[in-house]
Amino acid sequence: MTNIDWKDKKNLTMLADFYEFTMANGYFECGMEDKIAYFDMFFRAIPDNGGFAIMAGVEQLIEYLKNLKFQEEDIEYFRSKNLFSEEFLDYLRNFKFECDVWAVPEGTPIFPHEPIVTVRGPIIQAQIVETMVLLTINHQSLIATKANRIVRAAKGRSVMEFGSRRAQGYEGAILGARAAYIGGCIGTACTIVDRDFEVPALGTMAHSWVQMFPTELDSFKAYARLYPNSCVLLVDTYNVLESGVPNAIKAFNEEVVPRGYRPKGIRIDSGDIAYLSKEARKMLDEAGFEDCPIVASSSLDEYVIRELLNQGAKIDSFGVGERLITAKSEPVFGGVYKLAAIEKDGKIIPKIKVSENVGKITIPGFKQVYRLFDRDSGKAIADVITLHDEVIDDSKPYEIFHPIYTWKRKTITNFYAKKLLVKIFDGGESVYESPNIEDIRNYCGEQINTLWEEVRRFEKPHKYFVDLSESLWTIKNQLLEKHK
Amino acid sequence: MTNIDWKDKKNLTMLADFYEFTMANGYFECGMEDKIAYFDMFFRAIPDNGGFAIMAGVEQLIEYLKNLKFQEEDIEYFRSKNLFSEEFLDYLRNFKFECDVWAVPEGTPIFPHEPIVTVRGPIIQAQIVETMVLLTINHQSLIATKANRIVRAAKGRSVMEFGSRRAQGYEGAILGARAAYIGGCIGTACTIVDRDFEVPALGTMAHSWVQMFPTELDSFKAYARLYPNSCVLLVDTYNVLESGVPNAIKAFNEEVVPRGYRPKGIRIDSGDIAYLSKEARKMLDEAGFEDCPIVASSSLDEYVIRELLNQGAKIDSFGVGERLITAKSEPVFGGVYKLAAIEKDGKIIPKIKVSENVGKITIPGFKQVYRLFDRDSGKAIADVITLHDEVIDDSKPYEIFHPIYTWKRKTITNFYAKKLLVKIFDGGESVYESPNIEDIRNYCGEQINTLWEEVRRFEKPHKYFVDLSESLWTIKNQLLEKHK
Repeated sequence: MTNIDWKDKKNLTMLADFYEFTMANGYFECGMEDKIAYFDMFFRAIPDNGGFAIMAGVEQLIEYLKNLKFQEEDIEYFRSKNLFSEEFLDYLRNFKFECDVWAVPEGTPIFPHEPIVTVRGPIIQAQIVETMVLLTINHQSLIATKANRIVRAAKGRSVMEFGSRRAQGYEGAILGARAAYIGGCIGTACTIVDRDFEVPALGTMAHSWVQMFPTELDSFKAYARLYPNSCVLLVDTYNVLESGVPNAIKAFNEEVVPRGYRPKGIRIDSGDIAYLSKEARKMLDEAGFEDCPIVASSSLDEYVIRELLNQGAKIDSFGVGERLITAKSEPVFGGVYKLAAIEKDGKIIPKIKVSENVGKITIPGFKQVYRLFDRDSGKAIADVITLHDEVIDDSKPYEIFHPIYTWKRKTITNFYAKKLLVKIFDGGESVYESPNIEDIRNYCGEQINTLWEEVRRFEKPHKYFVDLSESLWTIKNQLLEKHK
Repeated sequence: MTNIDWKDKKNLTMLADFYEFTMANGYFECGMEDKIAYFDMFFRAIPDNGGFAIMAGVEQLIEYLKNLKFQEEDIEYFRSKNLFSEEFLDYLRNFKFECDVWAVPEGTPIFPHEPIVTVRGPIIQAQIVETMVLLTINHQSLIATKANRIVRAAKGRSVMEFGSRRAQGYEGAILGARAAYIGGCIGTACTIVDRDFEVPALGTMAHSWVQMFPTELDSFKAYARLYPNSCVLLVDTYNVLESGVPNAIKAFNEEVVPRGYRPKGIRIDSGDIAYLSKEARKMLDEAGFEDCPIVASSSLDEYVIRELLNQGAKIDSFGVGERLITAKSEPVFGGVYKLAAIEKDGKIIPKIKVSENVGKITIPGFKQVYRLFDRDSGKAIADVITLHDEVIDDSKPYEIFHPIYTWKRKTITNFYAKKLLVKIFDGGESVYESPNIEDIRNYCGEQINTLWEEVRRFEKPHKYFVDLSESLWTIKNQLLEKHK
């Protein structure tokens, strides 16, 4: 990974909610700074009522945790608040991250209530990383999940990420494009993402290019002459069918073909794309450019793309902007970070957060997540959340059961079990090498293919099983009884 | 401004759509690099069907433009694409920003179709900044506008920005919090925003604080002892009315009052906030804490806040997270950047982009925007888009007219006219000093007060007049005739 800027970038230690520090000072002043706590990040609902989400952002989480350090200006800043003791400020000055961290690898399909990140360590340390753990994983998982919905709607046609100009901030654009690539986009319009993350940058021309020349044809010919081997012409500056496509055909014939190349496409960015694409297809075909792809852009998302394809639109690839890069239909990935356990005299004491709202009750304890795959089909059958050191022996039948309707039981045979939570920090040291982005993207596609079509569909997807092991279920119910 | 990290931050020159560079190389290869072009940024629709939007992000736009520079690694990157001539790469290596730039100051209410940023300069330069102009202004204007909607819904109660963990990327959190402050929030939960942008950071405690102690009361007392003068207690970890509020009252009585302070609040983060706040209010009042504010948080936005207040909820301030920092109800500010004119032999030639969709037709020419205020009431009457050097003489009556239904005319008297577009770069040199954030925020509040209540209301706001001067209208219509 070249990724130059990322590694040089500013220290984000202070990108934390202020209460993390008032609490930290509080723990310190109460002599609790060595208490060991376990926090889980998990989410409660899949955006857009989808059947699964996609984990993303682990590489950036690792960079953040590696660079955790308070600078002298931070200490000064805290001192100016008159809330923190000098001893605590010294503690921050000498701060060194010492936690163990586990995360689900990027590109993995993830489901509600499973821990996707677990942090174990001294309470102050495990607490103050909350904001950045959530921000990093929430954002990229949101965009990877959304991008994959759009990619699936395109049914094998390519989808490009085009949204930088409407993103929410600079990393909204940059890391959003990274996440979109993980989710299956073929590239991005954003140059810096190519330079730093090796996500291919793609693009054609803006309307201004066409307007800068005396005529549309002049602008097309100039472009085709310069880029005969990557010539995609934007045909809607004046009138798609009356001037754009005919001029594109002329430019292809005069400037591309004679140079021994074939046109790489026309792009339609406005108007009735279903109709225009069908007419443009006919015109291109009649001109002998059956191989010239038609690219569509213009406020697209999975719903518009599905509808366009239902109408028989002749589109070969999609440029998707604002609705992808902001996940417009549901722009929040609601991951939370909750205390799951503490240690006392070396023993793990599970902690639960109860709520009137049953969906908000947390799963206590230090945990692992297993995904069970059918050995014949390779399909994912269910996830089982277990205690961290629990082993699912996949050489024997394994009984899963519904955590509420416990009489609903099923015995799984002929399966293999895979642990989803992988250790990424050990005592504060990074112990995980992020795969390169191509490998993450490929892994993502493979893992999505292990989900049944019924889990992947848009409308009322089948709810994938996420169960608790017998031991974990028992601990949870004992704690609930106690809190009654 | 301390703003340390911002100024040190990475060079964002490469945060540009790749097509900006293929076009730039094209202009260069066609010998057009010295052609002067004018681009306008404007938007077409106000988010959430509101009556106005708020300009934000100019300070960051200025920093970006000041730091525009291609590094050797960027040149290497471009070379690796085999698309760019060595002469063009030399041009980039020696690139120096030389444009004139005008912008509407931050905090100003803005309306559709008005230029809010205008860039004049050599086509390559004016073109390649497109992505960052849009990204910077779109993002912060989106959040400032959304935040102000929420602030207005709170009817004088304070609103805090609490959304970092659900923001779309790091600057989504940081610059989003800055924009939210401009829009009227009283502060942010995000520490780095306080350190770097002097937006006050606020916060209390998480549920984990409460869970880390043997009992809720222990946790409250420990916190109150440490922070008797800023003690806000989170009362919903177990049960708001049965344990949270009674324990808070005990902690206030035992640890806050004896130290000579008054409690600063309780916070309710879940459940039926309307009901719980009313009951909590009674309990606090009966305990002699009539002055103890109740803070509410939990997926709030302007609609929920309005509904809570309609139900008589007893809430004194709101912590608003994910729905503010992502502008959830409409997470895209659709600013565009369009060619408005070129120069030929020193003369400005207006350019228009026509479209079947009337709303997408651009306003040609090099322009200024005047806001006309009534001298008696101070209220804004209308905006008039004029040619850049046109003067509206506010000592005489001025006739405005509807740009489509031109018989709708109105003569304005007793008004003063204020230019909205201010020069921020002159020949590539920054000539504008951003006000400090407090001044921007105050200016924003004052300017919103110049809008009639009918423009500010949520439901079907009155459409504020944005007209064209007679000269500009004539140019536009002549160009439209020509393109017919």
